[in-house]
Amino acid sequence: ARPKVGYLYSGNKPVNLISERIHSIKVKDIKGIPVVVEEQTTLYDAIVTLFLEDVGTMFIVSNGYLAGVVSRKDFLRNIMGGTDINKVPVGLIMTRMPNIVMTYSDETVLEAAIKIIEHEVDSLPVVEKVETEGREYYKVVGKVSKTNITKLLVELGRQ
Amino acid sequence: ARPKVGYLYSGNKPVNLISERIHSIKVKDIKGIPVVVEEQTTLYDAIVTLFLEDVGTMFIVSNGYLAGVVSRKDFLRNIMGGTDINKVPVGLIMTRMPNIVMTYSDETVLEAAIKIIEHEVDSLPVVEKVETEGREYYKVVGKVSKTNITKLLVELGRQ
Repeated sequence: ARPKVGYLYSGNKPVNLISERIHSIKVKDIKGIPVVVEEQTTLYDAIVTLFLEDVGTMFIVSNGYLAGVVSRKDFLRNIMGGTDINKVPVGLIMTRMPNIVMTYSDETVLEAAIKIIEHEVDSLPVVEKVETEGREYYKVVGKVSKTNITKLLVELGRQ
Repeated sequence: ARPKVGYLYSGNKPVNLISERIHSIKVKDIKGIPVVVEEQTTLYDAIVTLFLEDVGTMFIVSNGYLAGVVSRKDFLRNIMGGTDINKVPVGLIMTRMPNIVMTYSDETVLEAAIKIIEHEVDSLPVVEKVETEGREYYKVVGKVSKTNITKLLVELGRQ
């Protein structure tokens, strides 16, 4: 049978091949290591961790499960607002469940990128759902950020 | 003549088409609007602008030309270090020329993305070079960030 490649000669760019390739890449293929702190951590200690680990977003856990997200922007906003960073715990300023935008290892990078753009966040926690006593909890197993996606574009472009 | 499409049936992914497409996209196709402040602006006022404009990086100009770059991270680091944000001007803490990583409207997005990854920055000023009295100056005409690149990936994937 003749292969269906007609669209290659239509004068249009072969964009559907790009799209196919992008659709084939999963979050697990590009995810990075998440930086995680406990809810009780003071803003001061959390900011120190942020600088030591050189990340823009960190995930907050409670009993080992995802409880919140805090970004550089949240820290800056709270400091400007006069929050006492030596006393206030990160749990008090974090974006908390169910308002956290998450992704999964088997989601496509495209789906993750759409979430990042639509929700205007810098990164997403990659989670695994755990059900205990009829409630759902999420374990943080990775992170997908705009940096990971920018690196992916560089890789695709260099191939 | 038979079109050269042999590589499509080699069992490999047609990655070279992706690469070609990515190489064809220029900075001018995706660039955004830069947020610019004067060197004399206090850190306090610059941070207010950062929040009002909702950007992570701003460009500092002197006599209309690019003089520096300041990011959310720089502001946070200085506040933590005890800098008086009501007195210190942004010109004192900015990354200054010649240490600014820049891009041009006619550069490819791939080149810009490589600069972002290699220099570990969130965005690049898009500049136009101006020569006056034997010296080179740069006008800021746009911005390319990891957000623009993530949006591009979404567009390519959706096509």
